[in-house]
Amino acid sequence: MKQQNAALVCFSGGQDSTTCLFWAKKHFSRVEAVCFTYGQKHSLEIEVARKIAADADVPFQLLDVSLISQLDPGCSLTNASIAMDREKPKHGYPNTFVPGRNMVFLTFAAILARGKGIHHLVTGVSEADYSGYPDCRDAFVRSLNVTLDLAMDEQFVIHTPLMDLDKSDVWELSDELGVFDLVRTQTLTCYNGVIAEGCGHCPACKLRKDGLEKYLRRKEKNQK
Amino acid sequence: MKQQNAALVCFSGGQDSTTCLFWAKKHFSRVEAVCFTYGQKHSLEIEVARKIAADADVPFQLLDVSLISQLDPGCSLTNASIAMDREKPKHGYPNTFVPGRNMVFLTFAAILARGKGIHHLVTGVSEADYSGYPDCRDAFVRSLNVTLDLAMDEQFVIHTPLMDLDKSDVWELSDELGVFDLVRTQTLTCYNGVIAEGCGHCPACKLRKDGLEKYLRRKEKNQK
Repeated sequence: MKQQNAALVCFSGGQDSTTCLFWAKKHFSRVEAVCFTYGQKHSLEIEVARKIAADADVPFQLLDVSLISQLDPGCSLTNASIAMDREKPKHGYPNTFVPGRNMVFLTFAAILARGKGIHHLVTGVSEADYSGYPDCRDAFVRSLNVTLDLAMDEQFVIHTPLMDLDKSDVWELSDELGVFDLVRTQTLTCYNGVIAEGCGHCPACKLRKDGLEKYLRRKEKNQK
Repeated sequence: MKQQNAALVCFSGGQDSTTCLFWAKKHFSRVEAVCFTYGQKHSLEIEVARKIAADADVPFQLLDVSLISQLDPGCSLTNASIAMDREKPKHGYPNTFVPGRNMVFLTFAAILARGKGIHHLVTGVSEADYSGYPDCRDAFVRSLNVTLDLAMDEQFVIHTPLMDLDKSDVWELSDELGVFDLVRTQTLTCYNGVIAEGCGHCPACKLRKDGLEKYLRRKEKNQK
């Protein structure tokens, strides 16, 4: 059942948040998107997001939170002089991790949503994601929800439709939502800024490709 | 006893955070200050803060979070076209309230602190403050502490030395710390940007003045 409510989706134009955008369109009567720029190497990401939102008839707002990348200069996503970790290090997080990133995004999203009278927030974070970023975990999101409510004396609801899904499940969800082809051909996940199938060798491309193959095998099996 | 630890103080150059700065200098072996600019009408505030920190030999860093004032255009502190509420409205918060402001400040402070290897954060928020801003309450700060820990897999400690103090108690604390005259003559609390005693008629000046008179009466009485 569609809620007679509005939702604000944290949207990057990648596979996960694009799936979330269409999940939100299914479940809420009004959907808006907010995209965060923070000195990404690939500004193409923003144009990809803007186009997907426009095609989906979803109002799109860009927020510049590049301050975040000045706070921690050790992140390869925002500092071109640092080589990206291609694999997860044995200890610690890959240097694609921007500490506190999702917390900043969701906090700004909540402030923005509040001004629009929106109390539902949607984010594509997932615990099943390979890197185990702490601010993708369910415990973090629930704690943040309480903190946001206390900070602004509001009652936000943060939705995480992908929380327990692995990449093959996310492909399945996009298929159920009728946007499998759109996600496959128009989204940008690749760390090297190559749309759709991507560069093929960065961690994000591997994850996306493995998930897609797993889902297609499962789908084929179930159709037999 | 002085902790052999470092602390980062959220510092604005006002009475409260200046008292916190010297409280931190008493309790921690190393103290740094972070000041947030977000389109305040009075940039003098920043120069006041910078001077107090320099005189106290405390490293000072300025972070521009002016994005926050773009998110909610209904705040009089950041929008010169809106007249400031001189009194607290009967319902709701005064329009000097920037929703989520302290949450944004403390989140960025935590990210900054983490990069410096600092885990102690100090903020001058107080529940006794007249406006009852939700993000000044103890419950909010404790919830935020947990959320920050979960977001970055760290163990921050947010110190709120003024939480239960009214303005007269804050004057008393500054006296105990040996900085009563400094706070009285060098800090800027006034919404109209007048240093020390201030304009005398804005809510912040009234609060400061009433607290000062209350403390001086109490001190005189105790000395008899």
